[in-house]
Amino acid sequence: MSFTLSTTASDSKARAGVLKLAHGEIETPIFMPVGTVGTVKGVHNKELEDEIAAQIILGNTYHLYLRPGTSILEEAGGLHKFMGWNKPILTDSGGYQVYSLAANRKINEEGVKFSSHIDGSKHFFTPEKAMEIQRSIGADIIMAFDECTPYPCEKSYARASMEMTHRWLRRCFDHLEKIPELYGYPQHLFPIVQGSVYPDLRQKSAEFIASQNAVGNAIGGLSVGEPHEDLYEMTDLVCNILPTEKPRYLMGVGTPDNILECIDLGVDMFDCVMPTRNGRNGMLFTSEGIINIKNKKWERDFSPIDPNSPVSTDTFHSKAYLRHLFIARERLGPQLASIHNLGFYLWLVKEARKRIIDGTFKTWKTQMIPKLKNRL
Amino acid sequence: MSFTLSTTASDSKARAGVLKLAHGEIETPIFMPVGTVGTVKGVHNKELEDEIAAQIILGNTYHLYLRPGTSILEEAGGLHKFMGWNKPILTDSGGYQVYSLAANRKINEEGVKFSSHIDGSKHFFTPEKAMEIQRSIGADIIMAFDECTPYPCEKSYARASMEMTHRWLRRCFDHLEKIPELYGYPQHLFPIVQGSVYPDLRQKSAEFIASQNAVGNAIGGLSVGEPHEDLYEMTDLVCNILPTEKPRYLMGVGTPDNILECIDLGVDMFDCVMPTRNGRNGMLFTSEGIINIKNKKWERDFSPIDPNSPVSTDTFHSKAYLRHLFIARERLGPQLASIHNLGFYLWLVKEARKRIIDGTFKTWKTQMIPKLKNRL
Ligand SMILES: [Zn+2]
Ligand SMILES: [Zn+2]
Repeated sequence: MSFTLSTTASDSKARAGVLKLAHGEIETPIFMPVGTVGTVKGVHNKELEDEIAAQIILGNTYHLYLRPGTSILEEAGGLHKFMGWNKPILTDSGGYQVYSLAANRKINEEGVKFSSHIDGSKHFFTPEKAMEIQRSIGADIIMAFDECTPYPCEKSYARASMEMTHRWLRRCFDHLEKIPELYGYPQHLFPIVQGSVYPDLRQKSAEFIASQNAVGNAIGGLSVGEPHEDLYEMTDLVCNILPTEKPRYLMGVGTPDNILECIDLGVDMFDCVMPTRNGRNGMLFTSEGIINIKNKKWERDFSPIDPNSPVSTDTFHSKAYLRHLFIARERLGPQLASIHNLGFYLWLVKEARKRIIDGTFKTWKTQMIPKLKNRL
Repeated sequence: MSFTLSTTASDSKARAGVLKLAHGEIETPIFMPVGTVGTVKGVHNKELEDEIAAQIILGNTYHLYLRPGTSILEEAGGLHKFMGWNKPILTDSGGYQVYSLAANRKINEEGVKFSSHIDGSKHFFTPEKAMEIQRSIGADIIMAFDECTPYPCEKSYARASMEMTHRWLRRCFDHLEKIPELYGYPQHLFPIVQGSVYPDLRQKSAEFIASQNAVGNAIGGLSVGEPHEDLYEMTDLVCNILPTEKPRYLMGVGTPDNILECIDLGVDMFDCVMPTRNGRNGMLFTSEGIINIKNKKWERDFSPIDPNSPVSTDTFHSKAYLRHLFIARERLGPQLASIHNLGFYLWLVKEARKRIIDGTFKTWKTQMIPKLKNRL
């Protein structure tokens, strides 16, 4: 893996970079579509590549471990081959889904016991197990096993949890060294900064993570319900401590305006289920604002879904047609909305990158933010 | 419209033709994917064109009349523009869905009263109304308003219904002459042979329909639950009466083997919801037989969905992957299965056409039928 920062803006901490991985290059800042269980929901690989222009996607360790399971993934030759996606993949560690989806969770120093949300079967994730599963999946970037604290969270709990996450990180690194890569290409482990919304904990965590000298670093435990001010304050604080020359991944963020704000603070990588999940419910993010395509007002609007969009689907199909698909509960509605939203997110980070390089990011961001929040 | 029969097989009544319509040429025999309400369920236009190689699709007048409604379709400039499909479209007359979906149906000489299956609103379809709605939709081929009798059906009912369908046909032709085309290109009306499974009624109906000198003719009221022998016997009888030089459309048929048998009897056009509906449930039609992709036996089968398929999706994705998508209830499963099945149906009729032209259709059909019925 290599990470080259080609330019930095003068009036912002925003960065434009190139991240080289075994399955290809990524231009940062980048948004990573979420491919939970071996598929970005409702989106074909071809569209993901050609229309959305995704450069890297995310897989969820918890989901892939339960279905199809590591044995099938290994037999297929890893997730890339299983799902037919030849560009980079990042997997989370499974922790977040264990806390948010699984039942009967018991966390202790050793790891987390839980019951599958699918069939109730009992499982035990440890930092070591999370490394083993991620070896089987074979993503280019893999994540440390952490505890993602909820919001709000007592400071005493946040501190204890953060300290355990740091101890778990050492176990992740140690175990990963002992187990070989399965598919002949390297996988890179990113550690995760925690500490809830407490500046002193975040600082301590960021300093610890920075000291690990990993090839890239992540910020977790945000976008879990806290106010935007906290999200930005914590991100800013942590970005100021994490090494400049390593990519920074802000997990689970966010709305289009969240993303521009956090690019401004020095974040390079993002993921979020919002473009697909909200898209399936008819919420479209566009360059002029947010659209609820089910609204009566679009019934006879034959203009393109988003005239500024690079996604051919968008200029090809009208708002009236997409609304009709949603009203008639046709599968194609959520499919088109997912493609649109992901295409828009990828367009947004690409535009941001251009402005960072030509030195106009701050001005552009200031113009864009009110439009992005606008309800059409 | 023009229809050229380029070759006929010597040992079969199978025909290869070219049908020219305002929106393009169709090579017959052809299968028409069903695009019920302005979308082939779960399939993007691009895939329909590039992967499935559909040449013409079908729209349902009943569904389009209820949603989005004729006023929106007219404002959009017709269904082609509304849904962004620039190749030929055929619409049914709405009759079949009124009988199968709507509530509180009352049929009399004037037409059919019914309540919408969506909101219970009351509507009245007549032959004249069916022509007006189909003008608003703007399909290249439009269908006469008929009564599709159920199976089984008393002979006295079948006779009376057939005679009414014939009277309705005159009203369709008369009214269509009076109302102008809306979008600057011609629409062609196909009348429909009825008569249930009674040979004398089918003969009488086919003779009446043939005498109308329409540009193309359809066979309705089959594939409604009757034994296959009846389907083939009635189709054969009717094809022997309908004019050779006009295209023949067998409505609502059928399985891949039904289609080959009926091509052999002289049918040129087919439509059926089976490839998409069954595909959404995990049933795949392939060149080697029928697959239930949800079966455990495909769990570790990393071979292509159908190695003989021209659909790139099929050779690209494995059976194990598609099974995983179905088991995990991911939208992409039904999407890929629909593309596969439609691509297979289009491949099948294209292969049939090749064999008709090179004179080997009968031999090829005899080899294919057992494979098509095979359960893998
Ligand atoms: Zn999110
Ligand atoms: Zn059918």
